[in-house]
Amino acid sequence: MTAPREDPTVGELTEGEILRRILARLGPSRALIGPGDDAAVLASPDGRVVATTDTLVHGPDFRLAWSSGFDLGWKSAAVNLADVAAMGGRPTALLVALAMPNDTRVSFVERLADGLRDACAALAPGCAVEGGDLTVSDTLTIAVTALGSLEGRPPVRRGGARAGDVLAVAGDLGLAARGLDLLFGRFRDDLGNPVAVDPLMLTAAETAAVTAQLRPQPPVGLGVAAAEAGATAMMDVSDGLLLDASRLAAASGVTLEIDTAVLGPDPAHALTGGEDHALLACFPAGAALPLGFHRIGTVTAAGRHPVLVDGQPHTSGGGWDPYRDWDAQVG
Amino acid sequence: MTAPREDPTVGELTEGEILRRILARLGPSRALIGPGDDAAVLASPDGRVVATTDTLVHGPDFRLAWSSGFDLGWKSAAVNLADVAAMGGRPTALLVALAMPNDTRVSFVERLADGLRDACAALAPGCAVEGGDLTVSDTLTIAVTALGSLEGRPPVRRGGARAGDVLAVAGDLGLAARGLDLLFGRFRDDLGNPVAVDPLMLTAAETAAVTAQLRPQPPVGLGVAAAEAGATAMMDVSDGLLLDASRLAAASGVTLEIDTAVLGPDPAHALTGGEDHALLACFPAGAALPLGFHRIGTVTAAGRHPVLVDGQPHTSGGGWDPYRDWDAQVG
Repeated sequence: MTAPREDPTVGELTEGEILRRILARLGPSRALIGPGDDAAVLASPDGRVVATTDTLVHGPDFRLAWSSGFDLGWKSAAVNLADVAAMGGRPTALLVALAMPNDTRVSFVERLADGLRDACAALAPGCAVEGGDLTVSDTLTIAVTALGSLEGRPPVRRGGARAGDVLAVAGDLGLAARGLDLLFGRFRDDLGNPVAVDPLMLTAAETAAVTAQLRPQPPVGLGVAAAEAGATAMMDVSDGLLLDASRLAAASGVTLEIDTAVLGPDPAHALTGGEDHALLACFPAGAALPLGFHRIGTVTAAGRHPVLVDGQPHTSGGGWDPYRDWDAQVG
Repeated sequence: MTAPREDPTVGELTEGEILRRILARLGPSRALIGPGDDAAVLASPDGRVVATTDTLVHGPDFRLAWSSGFDLGWKSAAVNLADVAAMGGRPTALLVALAMPNDTRVSFVERLADGLRDACAALAPGCAVEGGDLTVSDTLTIAVTALGSLEGRPPVRRGGARAGDVLAVAGDLGLAARGLDLLFGRFRDDLGNPVAVDPLMLTAAETAAVTAQLRPQPPVGLGVAAAEAGATAMMDVSDGLLLDASRLAAASGVTLEIDTAVLGPDPAHALTGGEDHALLACFPAGAALPLGFHRIGTVTAAGRHPVLVDGQPHTSGGGWDPYRDWDAQVG
């Protein structure tokens, strides 16, 4: 046994002690039954529940030299909240399965809980962590499940876009990818290993990009707004606009025509950069777009290509595929 | 690029290709919206949903020398289904977050999907995998979330036991722990590393124990039966009867008196062995126990000790705590 210290490792505490420290950070449960029993019980007033899961793994998804515990709690919540929003749902609860090395500091876990709490408060008020699981692992892994309510509305799927619809986006496109480029470009040592971010080495615009990568701010509330405005199709842009747009086009049996003139100052990153978790949605022509969405193109009848960029087919290798891009040897 | 082979690794395929192979194994969706969109949408007819998550991690939770892909799919489903049952719920859906090393064989992943499917079919008919996430990791990790329906009934919590209630159990106690002892005792090499199980080295009883460890059969359907029979409190015995009984006793503010004479031929394992995922439940005196439950003791007013075994306090170090018992160096 080790004498108690101010900031023990999780290996020095029991599961119950770690859990108590996490629960103290999370704030009040909003559920019918929150943490503490074999399972949570959540209200789903309209008789349906939206459910999605997404995992962050040390290595392919984040580096501890760049991401703080708070960042990881925030991001693991945000990416899941965005998936509920993309169905037109309002997030109601998170379940968090946390697998940690024994030498993880409890202060890190506490900050991770803070990040989960604050992301819910900022992005999806009313949503809270209502359950979870703690286990030990050689690889820090955060698997989050988000649940949400459709509040009586039909879900907004990927397959509902029709020729003539307006193609629109809410949220950043490419900013998180620029942030990742900055991290890999500037904050690695001579061996290529990540080193801590030095804020003095970043301009304000660069700081915004790095923050978008480490602590993304998907427009979660706009998912409900899009559904209420009559969105015909919607999805979360997690793997890059081109790749995700081609998925929506395939599901809907249409072609999406994107106009790069309205993609902002960096169309290349906007087209291929993932991880901003913007919302891509289609609206009937003439529908008033909810504040926060802007038009980026048009839905047309299915042509030879699922996506046209400024009228041309785009043969992109863009977008993110975890099984192609991650190599533990490269780091 | 590597030429296609009969059994490629996941690193040689795209995420979409792996996903197609998994979905081909899972059988039909039972959900309003199943796999393929940003999130699943599940029916929750009584306006509530039971939700729980539990993770299996290579190393602390399983060894690939002992567990097949099928075993891991089965077990990761079973342990979560048991938690829904322990609330008196009927499981309706699983979400599966799978993080795998790049060199994992696709055949292994396919068998894991088979195990998930078959465990649902055997233990919780009507429940299916309705969503998930694939990512790469140095550590094979299976994080499952189970959802369930209370079908209009009140949930059965840990805190409802009252003095005078009958204490009862459904399912095995200690069998999975005997199986783990057999694995550690017989199927390791001279360095202590796990080696494949040789069925010829096991008697029929030993095979049953090893099977209970690798492919547990919690009495999931009896959770609903207990709720319908008026159970006052219930929980899943995952960390050993003594430890879990003390948790139920604390939540209910009672003492639980256990009679070892009815714990079977191996009371020691029955008291401290975890991982069978039996259901521990309390019923009002005189209630007819559902078939499959048997009485193991009595609920009394809170005394000095939360649990008495044959009338004596039991100072046990038993039960499982992941942060105490796992040491990667020891294996």
